[in-house]
Amino acid sequence: MSQPAVNGVSCVGKVLTLDNMNPNVRKVEYAVRGPIVQRAMQIERELKQGVKKPFTEVIKANIGDAHAMGQKPITFFRQVLALCSYPELLEDNNFPEDAKKRAQRILDSCGGHSIGAYSTSQGIECVRQDVARYIERRDGGIPSNPDNIYLSTGASDAIVTILKLLTCGEGHTRTGVMIPIPQYPLYSATVADQGAVQISYYLDEDRCWSLDVQELRRALDAAKQHCNPRVLCIINPGNPTGQVQSRQCIEDVIRFAKEEHLFLMADEVYQDNVYAEGSKFHSFKKVLFDMGPEYSSTVEMASFHSTSKCYMGECGFRGGYMEVINMDPEVKAQLTKLVSVRLCPPVPGQALLDLVVNPPQPDEPSYTSFMKERTDVLAALAEKARLTEEIFNTVPGITCNPVQGAMYTFPRITLPQKAIIKAKEEGQEPDMFYCMRLLEEKGICLVPGSGFGQKEGTFHFRMTILPPTDKLKIVLERICEFHQWFTQEFS
Amino acid sequence: MSQPAVNGVSCVGKVLTLDNMNPNVRKVEYAVRGPIVQRAMQIERELKQGVKKPFTEVIKANIGDAHAMGQKPITFFRQVLALCSYPELLEDNNFPEDAKKRAQRILDSCGGHSIGAYSTSQGIECVRQDVARYIERRDGGIPSNPDNIYLSTGASDAIVTILKLLTCGEGHTRTGVMIPIPQYPLYSATVADQGAVQISYYLDEDRCWSLDVQELRRALDAAKQHCNPRVLCIINPGNPTGQVQSRQCIEDVIRFAKEEHLFLMADEVYQDNVYAEGSKFHSFKKVLFDMGPEYSSTVEMASFHSTSKCYMGECGFRGGYMEVINMDPEVKAQLTKLVSVRLCPPVPGQALLDLVVNPPQPDEPSYTSFMKERTDVLAALAEKARLTEEIFNTVPGITCNPVQGAMYTFPRITLPQKAIIKAKEEGQEPDMFYCMRLLEEKGICLVPGSGFGQKEGTFHFRMTILPPTDKLKIVLERICEFHQWFTQEFS
Repeated sequence: MSQPAVNGVSCVGKVLTLDNMNPNVRKVEYAVRGPIVQRAMQIERELKQGVKKPFTEVIKANIGDAHAMGQKPITFFRQVLALCSYPELLEDNNFPEDAKKRAQRILDSCGGHSIGAYSTSQGIECVRQDVARYIERRDGGIPSNPDNIYLSTGASDAIVTILKLLTCGEGHTRTGVMIPIPQYPLYSATVADQGAVQISYYLDEDRCWSLDVQELRRALDAAKQHCNPRVLCIINPGNPTGQVQSRQCIEDVIRFAKEEHLFLMADEVYQDNVYAEGSKFHSFKKVLFDMGPEYSSTVEMASFHSTSKCYMGECGFRGGYMEVINMDPEVKAQLTKLVSVRLCPPVPGQALLDLVVNPPQPDEPSYTSFMKERTDVLAALAEKARLTEEIFNTVPGITCNPVQGAMYTFPRITLPQKAIIKAKEEGQEPDMFYCMRLLEEKGICLVPGSGFGQKEGTFHFRMTILPPTDKLKIVLERICEFHQWFTQEFS
Repeated sequence: MSQPAVNGVSCVGKVLTLDNMNPNVRKVEYAVRGPIVQRAMQIERELKQGVKKPFTEVIKANIGDAHAMGQKPITFFRQVLALCSYPELLEDNNFPEDAKKRAQRILDSCGGHSIGAYSTSQGIECVRQDVARYIERRDGGIPSNPDNIYLSTGASDAIVTILKLLTCGEGHTRTGVMIPIPQYPLYSATVADQGAVQISYYLDEDRCWSLDVQELRRALDAAKQHCNPRVLCIINPGNPTGQVQSRQCIEDVIRFAKEEHLFLMADEVYQDNVYAEGSKFHSFKKVLFDMGPEYSSTVEMASFHSTSKCYMGECGFRGGYMEVINMDPEVKAQLTKLVSVRLCPPVPGQALLDLVVNPPQPDEPSYTSFMKERTDVLAALAEKARLTEEIFNTVPGITCNPVQGAMYTFPRITLPQKAIIKAKEEGQEPDMFYCMRLLEEKGICLVPGSGFGQKEGTFHFRMTILPPTDKLKIVLERICEFHQWFTQEFS
C-alpha cells in the first residue's frame, strides 16, 4: 500500500483516495454481487428505456434470493410479523389464534411490548430459548444452552464476528483460516478485510464435491510455513457446490480439528435443503456429541443458521443465529461486549427466526397450511435440483454433479482454447468472459466460478435452482443452447 | 499482545483464549451496555425471584430506547409495515388509503414484491430517491443525488463502514480520528476495533458543551506528532451532552476541516430533537453548500441519520442511511463493493425509513393523526428536557446544562473525596461507584460519565429524558435524594 502523507503535506486532492484508503478493503472481492450483476442491472435499465435486446427480461440466477424468484412467503410467518408490527390487529378475527399467541409472546418479550425497542445485544431471551429447544429437537436431545445462542443480522454478521475474534498476529503468526474451494465468497472477503491468511482446501469435484481429510492435511501443512492456522470453515450443505457431507466425513473433520487444534466454523444455513436420495443433514454439533466427551467437551465450534434459506427464503429480514460450543468463558464475555457495540440484531428478523424455530404444532390451527406450504417449497426445490442435473448433463462440455442440497448448481464447463485466449486479451477470467457473453446474448445472470475459487485450469459457474420450474427449464435450455453456440463460435 | 504458538505446539487448552484473541477487540469498550446494565438485568431477575429490594422495578435510563420507555409507535408507520409484511391486508378496509399506497409502492420496488427478498446492497432505489428528496426539502433545495445515499443497519453500521474505509497506515502514519469528549462510545469502540488512533477534543461544559475550533486545533496539533489525522467526527445534536451547535460553529468546523484536509463525519441522528428556545438544527450539508463552491465542491463528508431517534424511536428496526458528499468515485466504488459483502440492510428497516422521509402529506387521510402523534412526542420531549434541567439544578452538587436537543442529560456531579477514595479502593471509577450505588439503592440505571470520556477530575452521568413525564419526575427526584444521601454518607 502507499502511505498517506503526514502533517498535511498532501493537502491537494481528496482526503480519501484509492491509494490511501484501507488496503484490506481494496483486497475484498464479492463476486455474487460483482461486476456481472452491475452489468445485469444496467441491461435492465436499458430494457426499460426501450433498447432492443435478444430477450425481454434479465433473469438473475446469481443469488439465492427465493422471494425475488417468485417463491411466496410462508403465510403464518407473515401473519405473525404483521401482528407484531401493528398489534391493533390482535383484535382482528381474521388472524388465527396460534399466530396471535406467537405475536403476543414475542411482544411480551420486547421492551414496551414493541418490536421498535432495542433487544438485548445477544437477542431476545425467549427467542434464544426457542432456538435452543429447536437445536435440541434437531439433534435428538443433546442439550443446548440459550446462553450460547447469539442472534445475528443474517448468518453473515455472525460469521464475520467470529472471524474477527480469531484474527491476530503479524507476518508468520497471522491467523490462518481454512476455507473450502469453491467457497462462498463471504469467507474470502472477510479474511481479506481482517487481514488474516486464507488457507484453501479443495473439494473433490470428481467425488461430488466431497471433502477429503488428506486434502485438509496437505493444505494445513503447507500453510504452517507462513501463518498460524487456527480456524477451519465448513459449509454443509455446500455453497456453491450443493454437496451434502456424509456423517463419516463430518467425524473425520472433527477429529482433524481436534488433532490440529482448530476452531470449527460450521456454516449450516442450508440445513433443511437436502434433496438427494440417501443424503441426510447431520449437524456438526450432533456428530461432535455422538463422538463422546473426549470431543464434545473440548472441540471449540460455532454453528450458523439463517432465516434466508431453507423453505422460508426470508433474506430481506436479515435474521440468523449462531451457537457457540466450548468457547472460553472469558472470550464469550468479549464476544458479548463486541456485539453490544452494534446494539442488537434487527428485531423483526429476531421475531421471524422465532417462528422458524417454533413453527405451528399439530394441535394448532395453522399447522396444516403451514406444513403444506413448507412441503410444497421443498418438494419443488428437490424437483428443480433433479431437473438441473439432468438437463445440464445432456450437453457435451457441461458436467454437473448432483445437487444434493442447498440452492445452487456449480457445473463445470469446457471452454475452447480460442475463448480462453480472447478472454485473457480482454483482461477477464475465461469464465467471466463466458458469463458476460451469456448475459448479453440470453439475459441470464450467473456468477463465474472464478468468484468462488476453482482448480487451476477448470471453469465453472454458479446458478441458483430457485426460478419457478417452468422458468428454470427455459433458463437451463437457454444456457445449453448458449453453450453449444459459444463452443462453435470459438472453435 | 501475546503471540499464539505456531505449529500446534500449544495444543493444550483452548484454541481461542483471552490471550490469543484479536487484541483490538479486547480494547473495545461500550459503556451504554456495560457492567452496570448487566448488574441491572441481574437485579431484575432477583426481583422476579422475590428478593426484597428498596424498590419494585429497575428503571433503565441508560439508553435512548423510546419504545421501551413507553413511547407509542407512530400508527401510520406501523400500518404500512403490517401491510408490507402481510400484503393480504391491502384488501382490508380498515387500513387508510395512504398507508396502502405507501406499502404498494415499497412492495413494487422489492424483488418478487416481497420485503423478504434481498434489496440492492446500497438499499432500495425508491427509498434512496425519497431520502434524497427529504434531504433537499430539509436543506432548502440543495440537490441530493440518490447515488450518494447508502441505506444502513442503523446509523452505527454506516459509521463503522466509513471509519473502516479511512483506516490505514502503521505506527506514526496510522489514521487518527478526532472525536468529541464526551462522545457516544460507538466512536471510541470502532477506533479501537479498527486499530486507528483516537484524537480527543473536549467540548466546553461551561459554555453548554459547545465546540471551540481552538480546541480542535490544539488536539490536532498534538496528534500530528504520533499519527496521521484524517477524520473529524461531530455529533450534532450532541450525544451524550444534548447541545445543539450554532450555525457559526458549524461554519468554523467546516473551514477547519478544509484547511486541515480532514474527512468530516456528521452524526445527525437527532436532527428532529431540538427543544431549546433559540436553538435550531443546521445540517452540515446545508451550511457547507451555503459557504459556496470553494467548500461545497471540495470538503469530503458523510452525514448519518437513523430511524431510531427523533419522534419515531424505532430502534429495533435498525434503519438508517448516510449521504456521502465529494467522495472520490473510485473510493465510492470500493464502498459499494464493501457493503455488498453483507448483502443488504434489513428491508423492514428500509421500508420504515421510507416512511420517515416520506410521511403523510396534508391532502392525505393519515396526515392529521400523524402530525398529532409526532407533535405530541416532540412536545413531551421538550417539556421533559426543561424539567430535567430544572429539577437537577435544585440540588447542590449537581450542575446540569440545558438539554437543547437529543435525548440525554449529562449533568456534572460533585463527589466527596471519601467516595473517590472508596471507589479507587474497589478498583472502580468514582462515577461508576456512584451509579452502582444508585442502582442498588434506588433501582435506577444510568451510565457513568467515564464511559463517554470527561475532563480529568470531573464526574458525570448520562441519563435519557425518555421516561414518561410522571415517571421522569420520580426518577429525577430519587436521583436528587440519592445524591444528597450519597454526599452525606461519604462526608
